[in-house]
Amino acid sequence: MISKILNKVDAPFDENVIDIEKEKLIIAGPCAIESYDQLLETARFIKSKGVKILRGGAYKPRTSPFAFQGMRKEGLEILKAVKKEVGIMAVTEAIDEKSLSEVYEVSDMIQIGSRNMQNFSLLVEAGKQDKPILLKRGMSATIKEWIHAAEYIAKQGNTKIIMCERGIRTFNDYTRNTMDIAAIPIIKQETGLKVIADPSHGTGKRNLILPMSLASLAAGADGLIIEVHPQPEDALSDGDQSLNFEEFSNLISVIKG
Amino acid sequence: MISKILNKVDAPFDENVIDIEKEKLIIAGPCAIESYDQLLETARFIKSKGVKILRGGAYKPRTSPFAFQGMRKEGLEILKAVKKEVGIMAVTEAIDEKSLSEVYEVSDMIQIGSRNMQNFSLLVEAGKQDKPILLKRGMSATIKEWIHAAEYIAKQGNTKIIMCERGIRTFNDYTRNTMDIAAIPIIKQETGLKVIADPSHGTGKRNLILPMSLASLAAGADGLIIEVHPQPEDALSDGDQSLNFEEFSNLISVIKG
Amino acid sequence: MISKILNKVDAPFDENVIDIEKEKLIIAGPCAIESYDQLLETARFIKSKGVKILRGGAYKPRTSPFAFQGMRKEGLEILKAVKKEVGIMAVTEAIDEKSLSEVYEVSDMIQIGSRNMQNFSLLVEAGKQDKPILLKRGMSATIKEWIHAAEYIAKQGNTKIIMCERGIRTFNDYTRNTMDIAAIPIIKQETGLKVIADPSHGTGKRNLILPMSLASLAAGADGLIIEVHPQPEDALSDGDQSLNFEEFSNLISVIKG
Amino acid sequence: MISKILNKVDAPFDENVIDIEKEKLIIAGPCAIESYDQLLETARFIKSKGVKILRGGAYKPRTSPFAFQGMRKEGLEILKAVKKEVGIMAVTEAIDEKSLSEVYEVSDMIQIGSRNMQNFSLLVEAGKQDKPILLKRGMSATIKEWIHAAEYIAKQGNTKIIMCERGIRTFNDYTRNTMDIAAIPIIKQETGLKVIADPSHGTGKRNLILPMSLASLAAGADGLIIEVHPQPEDALSDGDQSLNFEEFSNLISVIKG
Repeated sequence: MISKILNKVDAPFDENVIDIEKEKLIIAGPCAIESYDQLLETARFIKSKGVKILRGGAYKPRTSPFAFQGMRKEGLEILKAVKKEVGIMAVTEAIDEKSLSEVYEVSDMIQIGSRNMQNFSLLVEAGKQDKPILLKRGMSATIKEWIHAAEYIAKQGNTKIIMCERGIRTFNDYTRNTMDIAAIPIIKQETGLKVIADPSHGTGKRNLILPMSLASLAAGADGLIIEVHPQPEDALSDGDQSLNFEEFSNLISVIKG
Repeated sequence: MISKILNKVDAPFDENVIDIEKEKLIIAGPCAIESYDQLLETARFIKSKGVKILRGGAYKPRTSPFAFQGMRKEGLEILKAVKKEVGIMAVTEAIDEKSLSEVYEVSDMIQIGSRNMQNFSLLVEAGKQDKPILLKRGMSATIKEWIHAAEYIAKQGNTKIIMCERGIRTFNDYTRNTMDIAAIPIIKQETGLKVIADPSHGTGKRNLILPMSLASLAAGADGLIIEVHPQPEDALSDGDQSLNFEEFSNLISVIKG
Repeated sequence: MISKILNKVDAPFDENVIDIEKEKLIIAGPCAIESYDQLLETARFIKSKGVKILRGGAYKPRTSPFAFQGMRKEGLEILKAVKKEVGIMAVTEAIDEKSLSEVYEVSDMIQIGSRNMQNFSLLVEAGKQDKPILLKRGMSATIKEWIHAAEYIAKQGNTKIIMCERGIRTFNDYTRNTMDIAAIPIIKQETGLKVIADPSHGTGKRNLILPMSLASLAAGADGLIIEVHPQPEDALSDGDQSLNFEEFSNLISVIKG
Repeated sequence: MISKILNKVDAPFDENVIDIEKEKLIIAGPCAIESYDQLLETARFIKSKGVKILRGGAYKPRTSPFAFQGMRKEGLEILKAVKKEVGIMAVTEAIDEKSLSEVYEVSDMIQIGSRNMQNFSLLVEAGKQDKPILLKRGMSATIKEWIHAAEYIAKQGNTKIIMCERGIRTFNDYTRNTMDIAAIPIIKQETGLKVIADPSHGTGKRNLILPMSLASLAAGADGLIIEVHPQPEDALSDGDQSLNFEEFSNLISVIKG
């Protein structure tokens, strides 16, 4: 094992909440929280499909400072209201120490995004929390670097870490990223952590989400995180890689076989 | 579709030989043909597991001119004898025009290797044959380049082409290559060709062959090509990525579910 | 021009301090501040060679949480003392909001490291300072992403930005990174910013620092940042890519021609 | 040294022809030979600028089989006529055994292109010739693989090899390839071979050719190979990376300083 401290880890959730040993962890929702109605509609729909965790970004790390940066604090308020209204858990991204404490108040799981995988100060703060951390792989992170990032969190005492393979950056320009499916069994062999896959960011293409979801699960993934939007064509970000409700329904049927 | 000429293609095999619409195409055997006994033992074993096509390199394109270059013509003689003795089909690699005509005499399918994916003269010659061509993806080939390489073959009249995803070269140094599993559904969407996966070269690690085989099939692969060796630890090349008989047996059981 | 806001930028320094239009900006010093004596000796030596800015990391973002993390606040105290003793300017890295305000107190220029190139909260904070920012390129940052990162800083009002090409991550394993020398003229064409090169991180190999320094300057770089250590073989980090005093002396002679 | 057989090599040219120890080897000409007039005009012009070797592709390895494949044998006839008319040496690419013998008859130097860097049969044939070989680096070739490719040639007896760095394939999409300038001093340190740079293919952009030429020479390159075309905007291939006569004139003036 590469990691000496990650072979004995806490289950990310109490087994009464989600028994990740027995059922796959499906997380779904829009890339960004855009309005109360958008999130509510999505949350209700995915819950009806058996999904227990809603995703939705309030703080969005965007390449350009002139792009939509997320609804930020207002987005978290919406998330809080929708969670209560629908009765569903949530995960959303923290991008710095301040947003981390805000996210902690609202969210059941805290996401550290790809661009922050080596933001070591943020990892240390995440390690001080008592909620599960969803640690996305950096765009050009080696397996070792990703595991070491998880160790930054674990070293502070929080070993409720879920790793998320979301594709790496390669010369291949057909897909947004190249999903490194082999990373899924590797992380499981080298640590005791759970691993999920993000075929939405991993491919950037709606019609590849289903086959890559199936591939990830076949390779041993403990779950999936999928972008779903009521009207992907109107999404403020990542519409091309979001499923509409019908497509998501179909994905769930196929997965549950 | 990227390719306008590859949507109407011939089935690689007569359906009485191998019905690739109904059963997965499993190809297995050693990286290199090392001796009559080694190949015979392997061929008998894989046949007993239901495998219909034996692989084994006679001409080996090796990075260094001082490395073992394969048994070449002698290797083809062994392949011919083993095929007859065991009653099994075979695929082996051609590396130039001369070896192509030799391989044609012996083999049921002709492999064009990664390093020759853009050896256009060789592709043109392959296109003049009436036997199926196994076209491995180049180490840094984009989807478009790979499809165009297949078009070089098809343009000569031979559309019995099977594409083989065998991993691409990335910064990731944990595995020998990074398998681009998304390429499997992409090739199927963009052409009418069949696609198989090579998790042996794709990972370079024995313990990743099973999960990556399952992932490839889940993503829609029409088959697999797997390195199997009686004693992987003594193999003249690629021992680290070859399964022994027991491991291969297990793989077949899991795949057949 | 890719960037509409970076074509009119402030000179990073007052021309009475360093006239970057007339002389190349040479920054030198150890990877990490290890002790008062180490930094003092280095600072005195590089000043004797005409270098006006000392580098030295107090906060070190390290891949593993178990690796030396820098002397942190104590390192900044040493830097402050050495600056005063020798009479030299300094640049050192800030890794989060807290260290940014500490670094601001001591340093003449603030470095944002590669791993934080898309730590947008940190970029925003850097944009509120009135000191020049040294913005290193992320390991897998495209030209556009790097320019957008600079825009995050500039949008807050601070356009005293110096870009630093330090190599990107590729399949090539001979060097630590692959220096993208073409990025130097590209950044100059696409923005009005100054660009320097870091051949120490860019190659990871002592004997490549001189040729890559010359190549960078020939391609139009406005300066260099070079790791120098009194005893590279004893360095706590990056010894293999640090020049000793004699080697640095030679580099300066060759550059000044 | 990585290579044990390439430290003692023959000079690529007789020193009475081109003394590569004393003068830089500049090769120039169109990507593809398109007509007698086009090649003649270019040859006369570059000769007037002191260039001793004309480049021009007769056999063009193109990604798509439907793209212009070069004038092939007819192109070689044109090259032969222009060489005689102008009095200039030439280099052109061989893509297989047959074209190699044709190229041998006409050309003073034989180019092995990037896509054929690991076409080992072609390398072996090149090694049997008594003319210098220009060996371009493969798009994703490591330093070791490139040196081993040269060893395939040298092992047959021909050590008149010139290595050509022409950029590698990375995630960076601003330039056609990423020039690995560090490869220039590395090849010189690890072998006794001469190295030239190809900033035309290395960048794919006309306005980067000059700075990257200067960078290559500063890093120790023994020469350059530059695409020049009378009307780049009308070129049948690679027009965007070809200099017109005025731009080439300027490049030569700057280089000769």
